Amino acid sequence: MQPNRRAGIARSLLLLALFALGLATPALAQGADPLPSWNEGPTKAAILAFVRATTTAGSPDFVPPADRIATFDQDGTLWVEKPVYAEVAFAADRVRALAQINPSLADEEPFKTAIGGDPAALAALSYPDMNKISFVTLDNLPVDTLRDDAAAWIATARNPLFGRLRTDLVYAPMTEVMALLRANGFRTYIVTGGGQDFVRSYAERLYGVPPEQVVGTADAIAFGYDAAGRPVLRLQPSVLFDDVFGGKPVGIHLVIGKRPYAAFGNSTGDRQMLEYTKAGKGLRFAALVLHDDGAREVAYGPAQGLPASDVGTFTQGLYDEAKARGWHVISMKSDWKRVFAFEP
Amino acid sequence: MQPNRRAGIARSLLLLALFALGLATPALAQGADPLPSWNEGPTKAAILAFVRATTTAGSPDFVPPADRIATFDQDGTLWVEKPVYAEVAFAADRVRALAQINPSLADEEPFKTAIGGDPAALAALSYPDMNKISFVTLDNLPVDTLRDDAAAWIATARNPLFGRLRTDLVYAPMTEVMALLRANGFRTYIVTGGGQDFVRSYAERLYGVPPEQVVGTADAIAFGYDAAGRPVLRLQPSVLFDDVFGGKPVGIHLVIGKRPYAAFGNSTGDRQMLEYTKAGKGLRFAALVLHDDGAREVAYGPAQGLPASDVGTFTQGLYDEAKARGWHVISMKSDWKRVFAFEP
Repeated sequence: MQPNRRAGIARSLLLLALFALGLATPALAQGADPLPSWNEGPTKAAILAFVRATTTAGSPDFVPPADRIATFDQDGTLWVEKPVYAEVAFAADRVRALAQINPSLADEEPFKTAIGGDPAALAALSYPDMNKISFVTLDNLPVDTLRDDAAAWIATARNPLFGRLRTDLVYAPMTEVMALLRANGFRTYIVTGGGQDFVRSYAERLYGVPPEQVVGTADAIAFGYDAAGRPVLRLQPSVLFDDVFGGKPVGIHLVIGKRPYAAFGNSTGDRQMLEYTKAGKGLRFAALVLHDDGAREVAYGPAQGLPASDVGTFTQGLYDEAKARGWHVISMKSDWKRVFAFEP
Repeated sequence: MQPNRRAGIARSLLLLALFALGLATPALAQGADPLPSWNEGPTKAAILAFVRATTTAGSPDFVPPADRIATFDQDGTLWVEKPVYAEVAFAADRVRALAQINPSLADEEPFKTAIGGDPAALAALSYPDMNKISFVTLDNLPVDTLRDDAAAWIATARNPLFGRLRTDLVYAPMTEVMALLRANGFRTYIVTGGGQDFVRSYAERLYGVPPEQVVGTADAIAFGYDAAGRPVLRLQPSVLFDDVFGGKPVGIHLVIGKRPYAAFGNSTGDRQMLEYTKAGKGLRFAALVLHDDGAREVAYGPAQGLPASDVGTFTQGLYDEAKARGWHVISMKSDWKRVFAFEP
């Protein structure tokens, strides 16, 4: 660990101890704006009010530190998901490499589409086809190798729509919310339909989220030994656990075993996680990121008149449920002063 | 949270902060014996040396706090597993209740054996039969109901061999090791072949281990809604994940995503977890509890000449592997000054 990182951890622990002893006031009461990328308005106010209510000693909505769990979807909630999920682009790049060794792959769908690399065609692939692409490249791969490969890939991968590194396309307002929650004793989990090991490969660097706080879709893993007799965990071509829709509350239960007090998403894939979160006792917070900013990001979702049956995105039906249930709808256009950290 | 518990957490955080800042020395250097239930000897010395080496700043084996993971098998490692696993006794009691409503169960195996309740017959059930018993009582049960039922059951459940509450039969030396590790910044996970929700129902009370640090065998869970439209997670009659043998390293990877620095077990079901732990870089610690004390506990395992093919217990083969690989073998008879907290 870097000395400055160690000192940072020590400072955080010291503050936590002082808060718990009642010798310090929470960070958000100390003047400096913890959410500088947010415009003033009801959404920002609601986030600050939730943190204050759940962490102020004596508050009727006080939540003990051990139960302060917040969950965040990743794609479309923490970073850009258009034109195609990072993980699908990663798998396509791996199929392209594989086709150098096994050229017949280029004649066979869905590998042909993957090798072609057209983002729109990749994004249009069915879920079983995405799995086929993933499985052909990951079959029997050691999990450590996958994590190393993914970390190396994400270090240079660019988003074709923005012409920027994918890692630049993290939403600054959302990392501020994560930091605010952590400064107030919450643990911030990523709960993603993406692959657990893929997301773990960069989650700490991008979001400050350690491996044990990444819940994701998991392929089956087999325990075995390498040629030298050392234990090795290898990915198998089947899905053990699908962390999307109803799978998100199930994944939360399996890995955390506690119901979140706050949950953030952006699509129908997050609906059940938000329902599950809000159904808990006491004050709970649920929010959806609405992609209504075609100038700074990409406009899609109910504001753009998508059909209500469109699954896996922010449908009109989800928007109506959010309004009916008191979930917050975060307008990128009006709630966010800036979207990305690279903006001036 | 109780005020005294809150103050306790605050004190722990404060100490952690001071350690991280280098302003305090680790607990184990402060004079008071952190392992009073252990006899002086090589095993106790090895545990203390491991903690010192991994947590002393400047040590070549120093492990950053974020990576300080220790894993513990439960049955036979943290508490008595004879004559029959607590969870099997729990399932048998539930089948007995179910037979009141559905008397025909009493005519059908393995339910007949479960209803009979003879510990030796229960212990002799095959793994598929144990699952059958579990599934018939848990089918479609909300996970919250299971946890409440299990917590209520364990509050009064007695071990027929000892005539004591099962919760009295926790090994005091092992909870001391867990406390010592936690006082030095380790997180202590339970990694059990037992059911994850069953063990979570009492793990915090018995061992100070919160739900998110219990890795266990997990049945499939379905997300749905109750009659009032509230989200509910219900257990399904199939095993999603079998957390034993090679499944232990896999479970560790899924839930933690980091390799442990220390692992404790007592049977062939823990072998792969110990191999996986020891195969990591740097100083790692592996230990097996040997049940060689027929006076204070139950004598079984290699000291008692069990056949080497006996699976799921401490075989001669496992003993030989431990010796060959430098795993520590904890003799209950000679290493433990007292076995249970109720001893004088």
